[in-house]
Amino acid sequence: MPSEKTMKEAMQAYIDGFNRSDAQAIAALYADDASVEDPVGSKPRHGKAEITKFYEMSIATGAKLKLAAPIRGSHGNAAAMAFDVALKMPEGQAIIRVIDVMTFNDEGKFSSMRAYWAPGDMEVIGGQ
Amino acid sequence: MPSEKTMKEAMQAYIDGFNRSDAQAIAALYADDASVEDPVGSKPRHGKAEITKFYEMSIATGAKLKLAAPIRGSHGNAAAMAFDVALKMPEGQAIIRVIDVMTFNDEGKFSSMRAYWAPGDMEVIGGQ
Repeated sequence: MPSEKTMKEAMQAYIDGFNRSDAQAIAALYADDASVEDPVGSKPRHGKAEITKFYEMSIATGAKLKLAAPIRGSHGNAAAMAFDVALKMPEGQAIIRVIDVMTFNDEGKFSSMRAYWAPGDMEVIGGQ
Repeated sequence: MPSEKTMKEAMQAYIDGFNRSDAQAIAALYADDASVEDPVGSKPRHGKAEITKFYEMSIATGAKLKLAAPIRGSHGNAAAMAFDVALKMPEGQAIIRVIDVMTFNDEGKFSSMRAYWAPGDMEVIGGQ
């Protein structure tokens, strides 16, 4: 099992990679056979190719991520973090409030990601 | 599947029940066959009797919960929330940073709870 430090550093690297628009760096945090369910309740994406494409599309929206609270570890192979996604929309600035839960393989790569956010967790907060 | 509103209200009721030291009210939020894994990576507790006992013991510590960010829903039968647990310790006030993920049954009761926190998520923040 990876250490708490290793898992939290990977979570932070995810945020940082997203914010410098580096889909390859995010994809490199995932195991080859990983799954991404974003949002929870949608059809999961599987494998590096689908996951890379997902982040290329997400980053292309111009979205930026900001931690809402410190990253949490666990006593197992998992960690979780609450963050806000800032997104420019035609009607103004939007915020989507999200919690991501990652599980890890023994090499410290994400084996799964699940993103908790509901329709009501998106809020338009400003004019154009 | 319960509505986003129903799930978020149950999450808030969990925080409120804990903070008024009402283990029965928390236990009532759970399905009879629910499981609680707190922290993630520990042996889960199963069923109403074990779960009620767990909250009686947790509440007896004097711990109080405070949301660190708004509760998140999902597009499925799950919700998540980041909160801080304030706890009086012999060496001062401690904070444990936690993210709870709940799944729900069709009646809007928790079918599972998993609490993400690691040893490094506990911090002693003040003197006696």
